[in-house]
Amino acid sequence: MRVAVLRIRGHLLVPVQADLADDVVEQFQTGVLEAIARERDRTGGLILDISALEIVDTYVARVLADTAAMAALMGRQTVLCGMRPEVAATLAQMGYPLRNLRTALDVDDGLDLLGLPR
Amino acid sequence: MRVAVLRIRGHLLVPVQADLADDVVEQFQTGVLEAIARERDRTGGLILDISALEIVDTYVARVLADTAAMAALMGRQTVLCGMRPEVAATLAQMGYPLRNLRTALDVDDGLDLLGLPR
Repeated sequence: MRVAVLRIRGHLLVPVQADLADDVVEQFQTGVLEAIARERDRTGGLILDISALEIVDTYVARVLADTAAMAALMGRQTVLCGMRPEVAATLAQMGYPLRNLRTALDVDDGLDLLGLPR
Repeated sequence: MRVAVLRIRGHLLVPVQADLADDVVEQFQTGVLEAIARERDRTGGLILDISALEIVDTYVARVLADTAAMAALMGRQTVLCGMRPEVAATLAQMGYPLRNLRTALDVDDGLDLLGLPR
């Protein structure tokens, strides 16, 4: 699994596309954290876009929240973007707290939240 | 296959992650073109990011060039971003012309090419 980490004006965008199965989670998180370590611009945030995910169960939600916690330790705020309506409904019903995670409707709004001027 | 098409300041970013096998190409192209049709901001471009692809053979190169040609018919310029060094070497050696496609090192440079101010 190769994790795409895209640089946008100092912010890092990770389009989460493969389902984050057990065996790729470590690779995913390592890929994200190494990209954070490499990036010279330290002022930007991290955007995790999950618009390609049709299902986000508690396991995947925990992986995302954990990744955000790791990124926070490396000085980077995370915004979770692109949550589909069904996913939002399910997560809210399950009462799962997405700790350390702010959310935005899409990447454009996430960039607003991180302070990128329009 | 769900195609993620991310909006960034009027531009559309497609992170190409799954290998574009025969049976998903039509779905991929339809997904991109429908996103172009839905987008209200008509001034932006289309960015195809292939940094997650380790291999780009002539078939995939043709799919990307065809997608750019389709996008051009809908009034949107395409920039191909994130080509890995090995992929660039192979494509150049094969002499495959990426028609209708401008290229940039990464998404940030692609946004520059499309005229997004820093």
